[in-house]
Amino acid sequence: MAQESKNIQFELTEDLITQVEELIAKKNDRKLRKLLNGFHYADIAEILDEVNLDDAMYVIKLLDSETTSDVLMELNEDNREKVLQNLSSKEIAEEIEELDTDDAADIIAELSEERQREVIHHIEDEEHKAEIKELLRYDEDTAGGLMAKELVKVYETWTVAGCLRRIRGQAKDVTRVHSIYVVNKQNKLIGRLSLKDLIVAKSDEKIADIYIKSVDYVNVDEDPEEVAKVMAKYDLEAIPVVDDNMILLGRITIDDIVDVLREEADKDYQLAAGITADVEADDSIWELTRARLPWLLIGMFGGIGAASIISGFSEALRIYPALLMFVPLIQATAGNVGVQSSAIVVQGLANDTIDGNILSRLLKEALLGLVNGLAIAAIVLLISHFAFHTTYNESITICVALIAVIIMAALIGTFIPIFLDKRGIDAAVATGPFITTSNDVFGILMYFLIAKMILGF
Amino acid sequence: MAQESKNIQFELTEDLITQVEELIAKKNDRKLRKLLNGFHYADIAEILDEVNLDDAMYVIKLLDSETTSDVLMELNEDNREKVLQNLSSKEIAEEIEELDTDDAADIIAELSEERQREVIHHIEDEEHKAEIKELLRYDEDTAGGLMAKELVKVYETWTVAGCLRRIRGQAKDVTRVHSIYVVNKQNKLIGRLSLKDLIVAKSDEKIADIYIKSVDYVNVDEDPEEVAKVMAKYDLEAIPVVDDNMILLGRITIDDIVDVLREEADKDYQLAAGITADVEADDSIWELTRARLPWLLIGMFGGIGAASIISGFSEALRIYPALLMFVPLIQATAGNVGVQSSAIVVQGLANDTIDGNILSRLLKEALLGLVNGLAIAAIVLLISHFAFHTTYNESITICVALIAVIIMAALIGTFIPIFLDKRGIDAAVATGPFITTSNDVFGILMYFLIAKMILGF
Repeated sequence: MAQESKNIQFELTEDLITQVEELIAKKNDRKLRKLLNGFHYADIAEILDEVNLDDAMYVIKLLDSETTSDVLMELNEDNREKVLQNLSSKEIAEEIEELDTDDAADIIAELSEERQREVIHHIEDEEHKAEIKELLRYDEDTAGGLMAKELVKVYETWTVAGCLRRIRGQAKDVTRVHSIYVVNKQNKLIGRLSLKDLIVAKSDEKIADIYIKSVDYVNVDEDPEEVAKVMAKYDLEAIPVVDDNMILLGRITIDDIVDVLREEADKDYQLAAGITADVEADDSIWELTRARLPWLLIGMFGGIGAASIISGFSEALRIYPALLMFVPLIQATAGNVGVQSSAIVVQGLANDTIDGNILSRLLKEALLGLVNGLAIAAIVLLISHFAFHTTYNESITICVALIAVIIMAALIGTFIPIFLDKRGIDAAVATGPFITTSNDVFGILMYFLIAKMILGF
Repeated sequence: MAQESKNIQFELTEDLITQVEELIAKKNDRKLRKLLNGFHYADIAEILDEVNLDDAMYVIKLLDSETTSDVLMELNEDNREKVLQNLSSKEIAEEIEELDTDDAADIIAELSEERQREVIHHIEDEEHKAEIKELLRYDEDTAGGLMAKELVKVYETWTVAGCLRRIRGQAKDVTRVHSIYVVNKQNKLIGRLSLKDLIVAKSDEKIADIYIKSVDYVNVDEDPEEVAKVMAKYDLEAIPVVDDNMILLGRITIDDIVDVLREEADKDYQLAAGITADVEADDSIWELTRARLPWLLIGMFGGIGAASIISGFSEALRIYPALLMFVPLIQATAGNVGVQSSAIVVQGLANDTIDGNILSRLLKEALLGLVNGLAIAAIVLLISHFAFHTTYNESITICVALIAVIIMAALIGTFIPIFLDKRGIDAAVATGPFITTSNDVFGILMYFLIAKMILGF
C-alpha cells in the first residue's frame, strides 16, 4: 500500500510533457485521464502551463470539474485568462460551483463586468451565489478580499452533542476545520472552540460552558500584509473576519497568507532591483519595458546630473586629471553603501524591529560608515600612491572624499526609508534606483567639493 | 463578553514599556502579573526585547514557565542568548519541559555542548528527553531539523471508536491536530485521516476501511526550502516526515514553514543589497562591518579597475574631454540594468518559472536591452547635444555605447545567475555587488573601446 503514498518530489520533465501532448494528439482519453488523475492538481496546472492553449483546453474539458476547478486556480495568471476566454459563461459557472467562495470570487473578479454577470447568473447553488456576490464587494487589498465564507460556526446555546451533529453538515463544505467559531444570537463573534476541545468534552455540556472566550480576529477592512504579519507572529492557522459590529463575516486561512507573504517578498525584491512590481521572466518585452524603463530613466537623469557636475569643474580637472580616474570608485562605493544601509532599514521596518529613535540610528550608521570608510580608504591610499602615482595631496583628497561619501551614503540610505515610512509610503521603493542615483550625484559633488578645499582650485 | 475578544492590533508603546519598568522597580508583582497575563506571549516577548536584561530576567522568573517558555521562543535571538546565560541548567530544563520537541531542540541547540548535556540531564519527562535527543541529531538545515515529534498516529487495525478514545490521549500533547497519520505494524506511514473524517465516520468502522491511502510526505534529509516550496504549492498545513524506509519520524507544520519563507526572503533581500545574511539593524557595529565590508571591497576593486581603464585611455581623453563627463551615466546605467535582469532571473529560478532554454532567454534580454537602450539613447542624444554641446561624433559615441552597454549588462545579469544555479550555487548571491561591479568595469571598458572605434584614437 505504501506505493500509493506520494513523495512530494514531482518533477516536470520534457518527457512527461511530450507524453501528454502525444496522448492528446492521439485523443487517447482513457490513458490521458489515468495519467493525469495520478497527479496533484497543482502538478496538472504546471503541465498545462507548458503545453499550448488548445492542448490545455482539451485537458480541461476532459477532466471532471472537481479537478479542473482546482487546476484553474493554480494556473499561471496569463494562461488562466486565456483558458477562461475559451470557456462559456456556463462552463465557468460549473467550475465556480466546485470552488471555495474566496477562490470563486478571485476567478470571477478576473472577468469583464458583463462576463461576471453572466457567470454569476449561471451559478445554481443560491447560497454559494449570494456568498460570492458578497465577497466581490470587498476590495481585494483588504481582509475582506482575502477571506472565505466557508467556516464552522456554532451558537453558544447548543450542547456538545447537538454541535457535533450540526457541524457534520457544515464541515462538508469546509476543506479544513481549524477552529469552530462561537457566536451569540446576533451572530456576533464571542469566542472559539477547537475540534479537539469538542472531542474531549462530554456530550451533554453546553457550548457556553466550554468555549474559549479569548479569540483573535481582524476587521474586514484590515490590510492583508498586516493580517499576514499578525498570523505569522501569533502562529495562527486561521483567523475570523468581523465587521465593525463584531458580526462574523468569514475567515482567512494560513495558505492564503503564505501567498501574501510570497507576493510581498517578491514585490520588495523587485522594487529593490528597480522593477515596478508584478512582472515575470515570461512576460512580454513590452510589459517588461514598462516595468523597467522608468527606473532606468531615473538613473539616466542621475548620470546627466553627474555630467553637469563634472562639466562645472572642468577647468580644475584639467590641472588634476588624476581626480577623474577615481570618479567610478566614488560612485560605486556611494551606491553600494546606500543600498546596504537602506536594505537594513527597510527590513527592520518590515519586521517591526526598528524603534522610533532616528537620531541614534543615524549616529550608528555614521560610525559604521567611518569604520568601513577608514578600511577602504587605507587600501585605496596605498593603491593610488603606488599604482597610479598620484601626488600626496591627490591621495589625501581621494581618501578623505571616500570616507565622507561613505558616511553621507549611509546617512541618506538610512534616512530616506525612515522618512518615507513615517509619511506612510512603502519604504521598499527607496532601496532601488532612488537611493543609488541620489548617492551617485551627491557623492560625485561631494568628491569635487572636498578636492576643491584640499587642492585649492 | 465580546470585550474579552482581542483585536490583533497590539501596539508596543513607550508608555507600556515605562509602565512595565515602573512595576518592576516597585516590585509590584501582583499588578505586573495581571498586566502581562493579559498579553499574548509574542507580545510579552516584544516588551522584554525592549527592557534591560535585569528587568527581562525579573519578568521571566515572575511568570509561570508555561508562559515564559513560549516567550523565550519569541525573543530576539541575541536577547534569548543573554537570558539563557542567566538561567541555571535546571531552570532551562523546566522551560524545555513546556515546549514542543522542535522548539525545545532549537533552544538546546543554541547552548554550549556542556550546557546541553546538563540541561538534558535535568529534563524529567523521559519520553520528552528521548525525543529531544533524537531531534538534536538532525542537521538544522534539513526537514529533520524542522520537524516535531508531536503528532497523532493511529494503527490501521484500530476501530473508529478505539481511535477516538486513544487520540484523546495523544492529542493532549499536540497543540493542533492537522492530520492523523495511519501506520502499519512496522510503523511505516501508509495513509492519513482528518479529524473531520473521523467525526463523520461510524464508530464501529475499521481505520483500514476509511483511511486515505494517498499521503504526501518528505524525507528527513530534505532541504527546508524545498519543503516550504512544496507545502505552499500543495496548500498543506502539515506534512509527515519519514526515513528512507518510510518509518514515520515526525511532522512539520505550516507555521514553521512561514518562518522558513520569511528567513529565505530576508536572506535573498540582503544578498541582493550586498550584505552577508543574518544581520539586523540592532546588531553591533562590528557585526555589521563584518557583514558589509567584504561587499564594499568588491565594489572598491571594481572602482580601481575602472581607474586603470581610464588611466589607460588618458592620452585619448585629453583630446576628447567630453567623453569623461558621461562615465557616471554609463556606469549607473550598466549597474541598474544588470540588477534588474538578474533580479528577474533569480526570482524566476526561486519560483521554478524559468525553463531550461538559456539561449532564448538571453535573446529576449538582448532585445529588451535594445528597446530600453534606444529609448534612453534618444533622450541622451538630445541632452548631450543641446546642453553639453558635444560634437556629432561624440554624441554618436555616447549613444552607441549606451545601447551596447545596456545589452551587455542585461546579458551578464541574465547569464550569471543561471550559470550559478546550474552549478548548484545560490543565484541570489549574484544580484548583489558582483553583477554591479562587473558591469561597472566592463561597461566603462566597452564605452572607451567604442569611442576608440568611432572617434578613431
